[in-house]
Amino acid sequence: MDAIYQQGKLAKEAAAVLAPLSTSIKNEAIQKMAEQLELDSDKILSANKKDLEEGEKKGFSSTLLDRLRLSEERIKDMAEGMRQIVELPDPVGEEIESWTQPNGLDIQNVRVPIGVIGMIYEARPNVTVDASALSLKTGNAVLLRGSSSAFASNQAIVSSLHSALEKSGLPKEAVQLVQDTSREAASTMFTMNEYLDVLIPRGGANLIQTVVKQASVPVLETGVGNCHIYIDETAEEDMALSIAINAKTQRPSVCNAAETILVHDKWAEDHLSRLLHALQDKDVTIRGDANVRKYDSAVAEATEKDWDTEYLDLTVSMKIVDSAEEAIAHIKKHGTSHSEAIISETRENVESFFSNVDAAALYHNASTRFTDGFEFGFGAEIGISTQKLHARGPMGLKALTSTKYLIKGNGQIKG
Amino acid sequence: MDAIYQQGKLAKEAAAVLAPLSTSIKNEAIQKMAEQLELDSDKILSANKKDLEEGEKKGFSSTLLDRLRLSEERIKDMAEGMRQIVELPDPVGEEIESWTQPNGLDIQNVRVPIGVIGMIYEARPNVTVDASALSLKTGNAVLLRGSSSAFASNQAIVSSLHSALEKSGLPKEAVQLVQDTSREAASTMFTMNEYLDVLIPRGGANLIQTVVKQASVPVLETGVGNCHIYIDETAEEDMALSIAINAKTQRPSVCNAAETILVHDKWAEDHLSRLLHALQDKDVTIRGDANVRKYDSAVAEATEKDWDTEYLDLTVSMKIVDSAEEAIAHIKKHGTSHSEAIISETRENVESFFSNVDAAALYHNASTRFTDGFEFGFGAEIGISTQKLHARGPMGLKALTSTKYLIKGNGQIKG
Repeated sequence: MDAIYQQGKLAKEAAAVLAPLSTSIKNEAIQKMAEQLELDSDKILSANKKDLEEGEKKGFSSTLLDRLRLSEERIKDMAEGMRQIVELPDPVGEEIESWTQPNGLDIQNVRVPIGVIGMIYEARPNVTVDASALSLKTGNAVLLRGSSSAFASNQAIVSSLHSALEKSGLPKEAVQLVQDTSREAASTMFTMNEYLDVLIPRGGANLIQTVVKQASVPVLETGVGNCHIYIDETAEEDMALSIAINAKTQRPSVCNAAETILVHDKWAEDHLSRLLHALQDKDVTIRGDANVRKYDSAVAEATEKDWDTEYLDLTVSMKIVDSAEEAIAHIKKHGTSHSEAIISETRENVESFFSNVDAAALYHNASTRFTDGFEFGFGAEIGISTQKLHARGPMGLKALTSTKYLIKGNGQIKG
Repeated sequence: MDAIYQQGKLAKEAAAVLAPLSTSIKNEAIQKMAEQLELDSDKILSANKKDLEEGEKKGFSSTLLDRLRLSEERIKDMAEGMRQIVELPDPVGEEIESWTQPNGLDIQNVRVPIGVIGMIYEARPNVTVDASALSLKTGNAVLLRGSSSAFASNQAIVSSLHSALEKSGLPKEAVQLVQDTSREAASTMFTMNEYLDVLIPRGGANLIQTVVKQASVPVLETGVGNCHIYIDETAEEDMALSIAINAKTQRPSVCNAAETILVHDKWAEDHLSRLLHALQDKDVTIRGDANVRKYDSAVAEATEKDWDTEYLDLTVSMKIVDSAEEAIAHIKKHGTSHSEAIISETRENVESFFSNVDAAALYHNASTRFTDGFEFGFGAEIGISTQKLHARGPMGLKALTSTKYLIKGNGQIKG
């Protein structure tokens, strides 16, 4: 594991070089990275082919192979993503607040880079590119630990980024790929507090929970979304249907998709049958409580376990409640504090929902699918935080910064 | 350990009750706590006497006994501290930013309570009071794990706070004291992710490092300060002397006191002898490098270890450097990113220091002793963060909050 420590040490040294760089120097380097990636397209695609062949031999699912697969177009898209990051404002150096104390001390709080970011992720070569560009833009070094099944692709990408960094006169240790793809290598990163300032795990719930449980390096947790749509008594029928269907079916495999629909019994009397049909038309499997099944006996019976399940596919659990309070209580018990929506025309219920439900994002009359850095207008996203500290919800460039206080005096001493 | 899990569960439930409370309800409860503490003064003092007698039997140092000791006056001070917290603005509900997306979604980011705060601390009964008031003010529940040597005092204080909470109609589970003071009980808290949203260790470096290394619950790390004063070539003599002496001697046992003084060789030629004498007059033991010892052969020789030592007493290490760059490099190598000061009249050197040294607080022409929530004007302090995530530097009420996004639409769905 000495090799990883050595990489960590070099990353720390590179971070000190990156931290004071001007925005224009960082932007030029990211531009060069984008160009170089396109120039090295053939090399990257042939490395990717190797990974894909290995993956096929190992019997990877088509979903997994699709995530792993690069094409000329995907490389162009990744380069384009980098160019978009160039256009974003640089949060480093931004003043958060400033004031003068009665003793004359001028205090200013400004954004600074975090230092070294450790990324641990699964077989998505695009994360290698995104994380490198976002880290460089914020003056951070990054130590990348991608999946072994994407190793050749990641290696080719990082080698291309290194050429660009060298052309820009920046240390290539700003972006490093861990060469050892064993589990032990990842575990070593968990406790490299001396060199890593933060770990960001991206991937399935197991990966994330392992990092959260075992790491002493602070973690930015991204995670599970057991999201709810609550259709209140006064919800407009068409709006409720359109939002429920969008939140469930537009892309069911992502964390901000809805998993449970809660319906007020008064609304259900007039409109539930139409909602059930609309969902079934979209091939959604419904698992309902006894009251839902009164409207359609063909609906499968939901068990207690359903309320805690993030299906991530075209399945939805559904329950009838007799009040907004019951809906809020259900969400408090079963939600994962990711994204929760109320569809309602009753102001007090919306206010109660906003004040009593604790989640990263709460919606009134809109789909939960908007919890996303791009949809929030951040221009980029390093992940969606489901934790309470540092950053909560979609994380853009600011989430990759820390702060420092700059204090100017004229000889003040403490009395 | 079931008892602690049960307390955690009750704390989580209490947190849900506290989160939506208005500022005035929380303030009234804190007022009542302050009153009750004064009313229960006799009971608290007699419990404290028990702890002190035990401590004496166990041979506690006078410093330790002094920290543990309460008096009528100290209880009044604690109550007064609570009343000051009442006067502070409530960060909960505060809008951080808001904007409208092109698709019409109104997005608002607001401060919310964190949830349940786990405090692990040594034998200072005042922390029991401060942490309870700061947590309640920010709508958080708190689970307190104080030292076994302060158990009777903490028990009496918490029982008094419970009376006040009951009089205010708030759940007494908002403030709970862990009844088991074994190490195992503390370790149990480290992994209670289901019920605890954050752990704040307060105490010595060992305690803090144990929590950082072993906890899966996110930690707000407070810690070690190996702080430097760099006296540049152009530093004004009187100012440099006054700041160096203040930073070293005004209260040497705290984390923002200076441990190393770096002196530019040109400044040293004219003024170092006077600085050495001034420090020696204040009973400071100086450990200098070979160049410092040329000015006073009685100065002890500093070893490599000195540069990394947080003495926390009237000892200082001292080194002569030939440039601001050398000073910055020394601080980068040996500093703990707490508080660092440059005394200089050369603008470029100050700018280079501010941009290249990475620490929670950087000072120009002022003492490092100002790194403190009260000195920064926060009115209260839960600790001084030495980590990069969530909060860095003195932590006031805002550090005890998280955020949520409130999004209002009129039927938006994702395309």
